[in-house]
Amino acid sequence: MTQHGTLGVAVIGTGRMGADHVRRLDEAISGARVTAVVDIDPRRAEAAAARVDGCAAHTDPAAAMAAAGVDAVLIASPGPAHEEALLEAFARGLPVLCEKPLTPDSASARRVLDAETRLGRRLVQVGFMRRYDSEYQRLKALLDAGDLGRALMLHCTHRNVSTPPGYTSQMTINDSVVHEIDATRWLLGEEITAVTVLRPTPSSGAPEGLSDPQLVLFETEGGAVVDVEIFVNCGFGYQVRCEAVGEHGTARIGDAHGLTVQAAGRWGGEIAQDFVTRFRDAYDREVQAWVDAVRRGGTAGPSVWDGYAAAVVCEAAVRAQTTGGRVPVVLPERPALYAAPPR
Amino acid sequence: MTQHGTLGVAVIGTGRMGADHVRRLDEAISGARVTAVVDIDPRRAEAAAARVDGCAAHTDPAAAMAAAGVDAVLIASPGPAHEEALLEAFARGLPVLCEKPLTPDSASARRVLDAETRLGRRLVQVGFMRRYDSEYQRLKALLDAGDLGRALMLHCTHRNVSTPPGYTSQMTINDSVVHEIDATRWLLGEEITAVTVLRPTPSSGAPEGLSDPQLVLFETEGGAVVDVEIFVNCGFGYQVRCEAVGEHGTARIGDAHGLTVQAAGRWGGEIAQDFVTRFRDAYDREVQAWVDAVRRGGTAGPSVWDGYAAAVVCEAAVRAQTTGGRVPVVLPERPALYAAPPR
Amino acid sequence: MTQHGTLGVAVIGTGRMGADHVRRLDEAISGARVTAVVDIDPRRAEAAAARVDGCAAHTDPAAAMAAAGVDAVLIASPGPAHEEALLEAFARGLPVLCEKPLTPDSASARRVLDAETRLGRRLVQVGFMRRYDSEYQRLKALLDAGDLGRALMLHCTHRNVSTPPGYTSQMTINDSVVHEIDATRWLLGEEITAVTVLRPTPSSGAPEGLSDPQLVLFETEGGAVVDVEIFVNCGFGYQVRCEAVGEHGTARIGDAHGLTVQAAGRWGGEIAQDFVTRFRDAYDREVQAWVDAVRRGGTAGPSVWDGYAAAVVCEAAVRAQTTGGRVPVVLPERPALYAAPPR
Amino acid sequence: MTQHGTLGVAVIGTGRMGADHVRRLDEAISGARVTAVVDIDPRRAEAAAARVDGCAAHTDPAAAMAAAGVDAVLIASPGPAHEEALLEAFARGLPVLCEKPLTPDSASARRVLDAETRLGRRLVQVGFMRRYDSEYQRLKALLDAGDLGRALMLHCTHRNVSTPPGYTSQMTINDSVVHEIDATRWLLGEEITAVTVLRPTPSSGAPEGLSDPQLVLFETEGGAVVDVEIFVNCGFGYQVRCEAVGEHGTARIGDAHGLTVQAAGRWGGEIAQDFVTRFRDAYDREVQAWVDAVRRGGTAGPSVWDGYAAAVVCEAAVRAQTTGGRVPVVLPERPALYAAPPR
Repeated sequence: MTQHGTLGVAVIGTGRMGADHVRRLDEAISGARVTAVVDIDPRRAEAAAARVDGCAAHTDPAAAMAAAGVDAVLIASPGPAHEEALLEAFARGLPVLCEKPLTPDSASARRVLDAETRLGRRLVQVGFMRRYDSEYQRLKALLDAGDLGRALMLHCTHRNVSTPPGYTSQMTINDSVVHEIDATRWLLGEEITAVTVLRPTPSSGAPEGLSDPQLVLFETEGGAVVDVEIFVNCGFGYQVRCEAVGEHGTARIGDAHGLTVQAAGRWGGEIAQDFVTRFRDAYDREVQAWVDAVRRGGTAGPSVWDGYAAAVVCEAAVRAQTTGGRVPVVLPERPALYAAPPR
Repeated sequence: MTQHGTLGVAVIGTGRMGADHVRRLDEAISGARVTAVVDIDPRRAEAAAARVDGCAAHTDPAAAMAAAGVDAVLIASPGPAHEEALLEAFARGLPVLCEKPLTPDSASARRVLDAETRLGRRLVQVGFMRRYDSEYQRLKALLDAGDLGRALMLHCTHRNVSTPPGYTSQMTINDSVVHEIDATRWLLGEEITAVTVLRPTPSSGAPEGLSDPQLVLFETEGGAVVDVEIFVNCGFGYQVRCEAVGEHGTARIGDAHGLTVQAAGRWGGEIAQDFVTRFRDAYDREVQAWVDAVRRGGTAGPSVWDGYAAAVVCEAAVRAQTTGGRVPVVLPERPALYAAPPR
Repeated sequence: MTQHGTLGVAVIGTGRMGADHVRRLDEAISGARVTAVVDIDPRRAEAAAARVDGCAAHTDPAAAMAAAGVDAVLIASPGPAHEEALLEAFARGLPVLCEKPLTPDSASARRVLDAETRLGRRLVQVGFMRRYDSEYQRLKALLDAGDLGRALMLHCTHRNVSTPPGYTSQMTINDSVVHEIDATRWLLGEEITAVTVLRPTPSSGAPEGLSDPQLVLFETEGGAVVDVEIFVNCGFGYQVRCEAVGEHGTARIGDAHGLTVQAAGRWGGEIAQDFVTRFRDAYDREVQAWVDAVRRGGTAGPSVWDGYAAAVVCEAAVRAQTTGGRVPVVLPERPALYAAPPR
Repeated sequence: MTQHGTLGVAVIGTGRMGADHVRRLDEAISGARVTAVVDIDPRRAEAAAARVDGCAAHTDPAAAMAAAGVDAVLIASPGPAHEEALLEAFARGLPVLCEKPLTPDSASARRVLDAETRLGRRLVQVGFMRRYDSEYQRLKALLDAGDLGRALMLHCTHRNVSTPPGYTSQMTINDSVVHEIDATRWLLGEEITAVTVLRPTPSSGAPEGLSDPQLVLFETEGGAVVDVEIFVNCGFGYQVRCEAVGEHGTARIGDAHGLTVQAAGRWGGEIAQDFVTRFRDAYDREVQAWVDAVRRGGTAGPSVWDGYAAAVVCEAAVRAQTTGGRVPVVLPERPALYAAPPR
């Protein structure tokens, strides 16, 4: 693969996210093509492969990675399958874009971290795609420029229309707030040191047994405080907002905008109904950035350390949900391979 | 009446505007009280007077102005009755707040102008209440401060929900656009020199025969161009906006704001449904400013010249509606009594 | 004093707030006049009295209340002087508008509560003026209408440009957050049951020793959670915002608006620099509502119970600042005189 | 070239727009690659070709179109060179994306129209890229859905920071307002039937001799009225806005949004400084849509008829600038090849 060659990608997992990534690589991303898809269900694999010219179907990730024309791997299978696929890619020296979570828990994330550390070079970009949203990027640039001074607080809002059957209070942390965990670490360039979770009387729109909404509070090593409203059955829309409060001013992203209508006594606009609409461009940018980095022979973006740190904070947050109290977060020393702060 | 004495006001006309002013003077304005009300219908006069402590009912404006305890006059009767009431007030040297229009046409407005000029001192404040709206005042202050440079254009919007029966195309000029005529003269401090009216195919929501909406264009003596969308059956709300385009930037007022709601897939807020809601505070400020000025022994605000100039522009605009072409506006020399530009 | 008579008001305290209320009653409020002013400094009292026609200067509140022409009392003296003045007014049966705080601590507030309860009728309106802000009122009306369902959370922001010398962390609660305490109780119609305070690393703009900003968390008897950012040296403006999160949607107030300028590569508007600008209309409305209620022979607005409950919550919040933990709030039974919920 | 084959594109012209399109096709567009670049300056052609793997440099468009690996042509050379390149592409049956203007005047545009009509199939997409802006697309969809009723008016704003040396009043029409001409025809699905141009006293920021700003007025065959503020030396930013006024409501696009900052007494955000920032995504979408259509064996988007109609309206507008009066627009019958209305 030369700098201008086309990157052959094996996509592992052809569920909702995987299928969307196949389509993205095929239709929207410059410089890459899908040469293999993997699904444990052979019919799903065949169906996904049939939509792309010159794409082979597999049921075994290792076989796909070994196939000719596979230069890189995009992992979009369920979380429990990530560790094995990541280690296989490490064994073959293949660059990986791994959808979040890195792995389902901190222990397995630690094993992946240790394996990549032993390898001595970074192969993995973790799918924390908010870092590729243009509004988040402008907020990050503004904070880094220093005009607002040090960031003292973040006020975050994370709302979903509704949850599918089987969605649990733990999943509000592991599947949803995990994005604010990474965004906090990335925007502030600091690790999270403690978590508290307040649980209001649940909304009548929340399924029986689900704590919804919740207020999740982070403290960081630099002494910043972050509050996150997570409300996964808010009913009215999908909404991700963040207001950074600096020493000299504040900056806010995520307010709806664009087409504004006046009719029937009201002014206003539509609210996105799902993350696909809200973050479509961010996904495109994320995958294009990964393809570009890999074609240049490098890697970039959220690292395995970021995936591991998120897993550790998630575990603390889930404990904080149960205890109602403040739960400290303890991270080991950061390996030299991930020396840079989470910027 | 000393500086701190209470101003006794005779309110002439107890229709919608008059009754509202009686209530305003009684409940919201400091330093004034209604001592007389006048209506040609004696029962309406009695009913209005009964609501206010110590207020007498009259059917004859002259009798009311002659009554004890009447220090000033607020004219809110129909336009054709204004001239006689104004001349009566001039004869008695009583300060007047006269609802717009000053009089129904430029000829009668000219007679009032000549009478006040002969009197040699200004007694009349004309009810162009937009000058008392806080947003217009901030826009005016910004333009006068000069930060945006000279004003090159104004983009104006004037929308009403619907019109009452009998409302004609001429009334869109004389009753509605007359506000933009005064606002243009006041904001820019220049007279209007020409008018053009474009008439799109009417909305299906407009009554048969009514040109609605229309685009009214003014040119000023300084070479500014002003466009006004007048749409009196827009259906969705009452809306008055103005964007001033200066050499170095623009400034905009009139966008709805305040309480913002997110629900059912939409964000936004309410739009006012009538001028009472939109301009309530402006009316309060206008009448308070008049009471304050009169108690200090002076007058202030829009003058008889402003009322006369508006009448002349209205007549040109009505001609422009019919001809479809550009109609010049010709004003006589401004009398020394009104020496100041229309600021 | 008849219904239409003018209410004679004694204003106690002629500092910043007191002087502003004297001006307000003199220039902006209908139906009232200042007949007496009180200040322990006789020159200040004389100076304030000299500005108002027919107004007497006093140094003793009791003497002022006993004077002819005094129908009601507005207390704007420092908090420690409130209790004595309130009890004196109770003894004379005079209606009172008492600036917040009712008294400086819950013990003295309890004594006032007991005194008014013994009196058997409500004479006091406490100066929680946010209830008179039009945006808060619209938010309250929207929540009461029920369209958004039960309120689950409030996200509040309270920012000041800077603090005067001597301002302490306790004062962030007692002088600033006390407004959010009352707003929470009023908007939700529920008592506060617990308080937690998180203290980020202070801004470099905060004076040595002041915890600024802070995140104050309330829980209510109905299980709602309220977060308040209090940042009294934010540097850029005075800002009070509130977003209510209901079961079916959210509503937000306090975003800056009005005149919007585009110039020099930026769009936007001004932020108010102090509460006088932001809440001028609310103060006018508050005092007018009080005057109107008293002239009708009644009372209205925030009660002594509201002032007492705020004092109890403030004391818990100050404890929570120190301990870093969650502090329960315990209120006694509400006396029948204050039977209505805090609506 | 199969459906999934990569489209080889010859880019003619490597100036600002051409170079940007080369980069776009190379880095951002899926399914295409630049196989040839053409510039009359051989060094510029070589320099552009050197940046892309496997791309040949040419100085003659015909030679480039004849080269192996060229499946389609993107014309980004100066307007006067378009006609010859288009006819050459027609001769070879190559699909073309032709930057606006189609050609510099209506006579040459008519020759291209006749040539494509004789060819009997559409090969050309004209570069009116606003149709690919997501806000314009949402506005178009809203109007087509009919919820707002028939569109009665459009209020358009088109502002540039400043003009390069040699920019003339005619160019305000031909280079800038031409976008509103196409947007009007596309949004309303109607031809323009008359043009009027009002010219305020120029801004002191405008170069000597340039009419700036201007107010351009269109009337359409359905009786809609469109006003366009064109202000190409506004100094503060690049801004394109459009408010559509329908019978039942209005819709507005183009207001700045995204990251909002509060600091130093002001709230607001940045305004884009050039069209590259404002319309980057629209250009990407335009070229991707063209590549996708051509790979499917078809064409789409603005047609040669659209380019021709724009040229006719531009010529009328330039006449209207000079005369100050209303200039009718006369179009011939639309050929069957372009039967669809301008949607």
